[in-house]
Amino acid sequence: MKTAQPKPSRARRYLPILEWGRSYDGQALSSDLMAALIVTIMLIPQSLAYALLAGLPAEMGLYASILPLVAYAVFGTSRTLAVGPVAVVSLMTAAAVGAIAAPGTIGYATAAITLAFLSGVILLALGLFRLGFLANFLSHPVIAGFITASGLLIAASQLKHILGIPAEGHSLTGLIASLARNLGQTNPYTLAIGLAALAFLFWTRKGLKPLLLKTGLPPRAAELLARAGPVAAVAVSILVTWGLNLADRGVSIVGAVPQGLPPFTLPALDPGLWRELFLSALLISIIGFVESVSVAQTLAAKRRQRIVPDQELIGLGASNIAASVSGGYPVTGGFARSVVNFDAGAETPAAGAFTAVGILLAALLLTPLLYFLPNAVLAATIIVAVLSLVDLTILKRAWSYSRVDFAAVAATILLTLGFGVEIGVSAGVALSVALHLYKTSRPHVAEVGLVPGTQHFRNIHRHTVETSPALLTIRIDESLYFANAAFLQDLILDRVTCDQPIRHVVLMCSAVNEIDLSALDTLEEINRRLGEMGIALHLSEVKGPVMDRLKRSHFLDQLSGEVFLSQYDAFRRLTGPHDPARVDPAAAGA
Amino acid sequence: MKTAQPKPSRARRYLPILEWGRSYDGQALSSDLMAALIVTIMLIPQSLAYALLAGLPAEMGLYASILPLVAYAVFGTSRTLAVGPVAVVSLMTAAAVGAIAAPGTIGYATAAITLAFLSGVILLALGLFRLGFLANFLSHPVIAGFITASGLLIAASQLKHILGIPAEGHSLTGLIASLARNLGQTNPYTLAIGLAALAFLFWTRKGLKPLLLKTGLPPRAAELLARAGPVAAVAVSILVTWGLNLADRGVSIVGAVPQGLPPFTLPALDPGLWRELFLSALLISIIGFVESVSVAQTLAAKRRQRIVPDQELIGLGASNIAASVSGGYPVTGGFARSVVNFDAGAETPAAGAFTAVGILLAALLLTPLLYFLPNAVLAATIIVAVLSLVDLTILKRAWSYSRVDFAAVAATILLTLGFGVEIGVSAGVALSVALHLYKTSRPHVAEVGLVPGTQHFRNIHRHTVETSPALLTIRIDESLYFANAAFLQDLILDRVTCDQPIRHVVLMCSAVNEIDLSALDTLEEINRRLGEMGIALHLSEVKGPVMDRLKRSHFLDQLSGEVFLSQYDAFRRLTGPHDPARVDPAAAGA
Repeated sequence: MKTAQPKPSRARRYLPILEWGRSYDGQALSSDLMAALIVTIMLIPQSLAYALLAGLPAEMGLYASILPLVAYAVFGTSRTLAVGPVAVVSLMTAAAVGAIAAPGTIGYATAAITLAFLSGVILLALGLFRLGFLANFLSHPVIAGFITASGLLIAASQLKHILGIPAEGHSLTGLIASLARNLGQTNPYTLAIGLAALAFLFWTRKGLKPLLLKTGLPPRAAELLARAGPVAAVAVSILVTWGLNLADRGVSIVGAVPQGLPPFTLPALDPGLWRELFLSALLISIIGFVESVSVAQTLAAKRRQRIVPDQELIGLGASNIAASVSGGYPVTGGFARSVVNFDAGAETPAAGAFTAVGILLAALLLTPLLYFLPNAVLAATIIVAVLSLVDLTILKRAWSYSRVDFAAVAATILLTLGFGVEIGVSAGVALSVALHLYKTSRPHVAEVGLVPGTQHFRNIHRHTVETSPALLTIRIDESLYFANAAFLQDLILDRVTCDQPIRHVVLMCSAVNEIDLSALDTLEEINRRLGEMGIALHLSEVKGPVMDRLKRSHFLDQLSGEVFLSQYDAFRRLTGPHDPARVDPAAAGA
Repeated sequence: MKTAQPKPSRARRYLPILEWGRSYDGQALSSDLMAALIVTIMLIPQSLAYALLAGLPAEMGLYASILPLVAYAVFGTSRTLAVGPVAVVSLMTAAAVGAIAAPGTIGYATAAITLAFLSGVILLALGLFRLGFLANFLSHPVIAGFITASGLLIAASQLKHILGIPAEGHSLTGLIASLARNLGQTNPYTLAIGLAALAFLFWTRKGLKPLLLKTGLPPRAAELLARAGPVAAVAVSILVTWGLNLADRGVSIVGAVPQGLPPFTLPALDPGLWRELFLSALLISIIGFVESVSVAQTLAAKRRQRIVPDQELIGLGASNIAASVSGGYPVTGGFARSVVNFDAGAETPAAGAFTAVGILLAALLLTPLLYFLPNAVLAATIIVAVLSLVDLTILKRAWSYSRVDFAAVAATILLTLGFGVEIGVSAGVALSVALHLYKTSRPHVAEVGLVPGTQHFRNIHRHTVETSPALLTIRIDESLYFANAAFLQDLILDRVTCDQPIRHVVLMCSAVNEIDLSALDTLEEINRRLGEMGIALHLSEVKGPVMDRLKRSHFLDQLSGEVFLSQYDAFRRLTGPHDPARVDPAAAGA
């Protein structure tokens, strides 16, 4: 397939910045700066909140929003993807690291940094070996089920901050049981702040924009201003908590956040820890990549741009390695934030780099102001953000389309809620693959006959067709491979055993895209057994690539019948006046 | 599909003995007794040898050849399958149990008994839930590779008995390294006995039968007499070892074998042990079932009988549970022994029950005679038996047919030899599935045009065909599902982006047997994106079941183009005089 665009050089393939950087101008600069300002305002509370969700100190959320953004700007292909900490990956980080160390310990932070490093290496390797297609094995039902269940889990995990009580668990049932046990210790001040923040944030999502539109603000400005709700909630809650001295009444606050540049960190060089974290890092990499690439593709399509999935892996890999050397934790492209970046007019990845500068300034200057920020407010921003991910209508949609897809969604949701994110998504993938194999192991098979007056052959049970008692024609609607070879053999041998006059069996192969070695063995066996019963086996409409392969085996030498180019040829020849079944019907038992 | 035979009652389905037992007569009795005598003579040394291979006391091999055979006679559907200890399952037992306890300990024997119990329960469950099709996921290349590698591993594991030195390891490299380290301790008497037994046994396989034929013996009798070679080797070696007092010169002998009925045993009721053994029991069950069912099917076909795979699972499950309550270890249908049973004229499963009586008599009367039997002779019988399983020609055959099948064989052989049976076969199955998914994730796709003068459409790169610049027709030779949906989207969008005049895209679905929910989402996305470019998406030749499902979704409402019954209809309509692309070519950029 020829392409109209010139092939980019090797350097430009791996460094997309060389492509867009050459035509960068003042107009792009001012658009990018504007978008960066808006995303920075949105990202400050988000980065703190997601660090909280991951069980990490607040500053690690800021650090994960600086160098990784610069790395993505250099290596990424999406013009508008906003990289940084995101909800689902933060939850997966908590699940992975929580299995190794206790939150708040040095070991916990080191494990999170190591997880970012491993995830970066895995993403880079997938990108360099062009293995991005592996993400395709996450079916849409599994992704949709996983994201919905994760949203519910994340929201449940934040309720402890709203109530001001301790709770733990990586499953919904565990979390709810833990919350229920400690409900008596609820702190009324924390609860009041948390509920007020929740109410305010929901209102800024639903009610603020219409109100702003009524004041005559242009729609885009109204949309963006409404997105600043979390910043307002943060500012007001800090003032209230400080003014009323609520920290002394048991309201949990963020406390001292170190002021300064991100530290230089290194992942732990501990092979045992790497082994323990490897599977989690792989899952985080693939889930992060799928989430990131789907939003990047959607946004690129709107401006007729293209992203290169394998280069995206390299961009995200570089971001995660950047996170691991600058005190961060696993990052990926965020859905909501990328949409805001796009809507705010970002034109190039430079917007991401400018956002990094914004967060850097916040880390240098603003952290003392965050001292009195209640954790309940951060929890409220998380809850409001993730509930928009929850979409249970996928269950209904899958049910009405296909029971198999429904089973995959339902199992992924239930297993994620019941056993946590890692088991949920692994089981979802395994189930998708198993159900697909199961379906193809019992393929649709039709006995076909000639539609009178045409050269077409259709199912004898659906159409009025011509058939011949000595001829059985089977159309198999699936490639023949190890999982369905035995099924075909049983089917044909059963069919000929209970129908005596059959002298010829034709396998119509129009939908057979492949015959693997197991199926070839089975065809040889069918041919041999039919031969013992005096029945000839023929093939018709074998596709070119399949025929090429059969010619490399001994099957065609052994075949008792012929290979016909078309089913019509087969029908004419095998039911014609010179067919032995017609010449001597008595011998055929007819 | 109708069947000519009456449907058997529920009792007869689960108890095949009710079927053949009713017509049992004197003729069948004498045939079965004769076959049982011959199989008993073959089975006595085999059962001792395979117990040795499994690392168990010799008498457990005898016990595994009594009650399990009776259980299979009641529940099995094959008339001629000879159940009992077999080489591959004995090796797998050694690998599974060896990971838990040291050979020679009570814990080791108990674990083997528990393994038989778990394997029996798994087989019964698979049979009752009719999950026999799961065995189809073992592709022929994986089975062939696994059996060959197991044969080599088993032969290598027996060399220590021939040399009279200690050695251990579950991989070929481990075994060879271990043998090499201890080679200095080789016992010359043991080696002499071992080599003599090997030479004699190979000669009985290859040279004895022609010799017997020359003496005028009928071919079948010569064949069966040659099979008695191991019994002769056992008898002679016992006499020599006793007469020359070789046990005092360091020749390892079987020693005291308890004389009497099989003991009543129970599996360990230890959930921890069950968890540890579960995966091994599952692998043993499936491998045992596959080996057993393939020989049973081959033999049944020769006499136009049928076996019922799901009932076979029940028969083998009952056998293994019988083994676990009578001091045995995992059993299945053996290849060579079943062929001997068949050739010796066995007519019903009663032959198996008579064999059980023969082994019972041996356990009651013959065990004192086995005291001086050298282990080297048992090892020689194993080596000679398993080397006939080794078939490296599968590598050549797979290579010439398909690289993917070759990769599966080669990986299974290498991993089994390098890491042992459990990793070998698990990796083989995983690889088969992964390679199948990989192939179908990048399906064959052809751009097609009309073959002049016909209604057929063929690949534009293989045939001279008519096309139209405004019309792109893509025939996709695979079902559309999650693993290849993204591939299709990239392909179509790439193609239309670099070819401007295209106004219509037709997806020719003659080989599409299924469209899952992920692919439906992708088709909606393709439809939307093409719509944004002013290109209409059409489908043609959609199969009935696929169309039924599409009608249950909203896709057909959104589709910008039409669904054509045949590709020819689509071509005529979209390139006809009323097509907008022809009316106004300038607008289409042509």
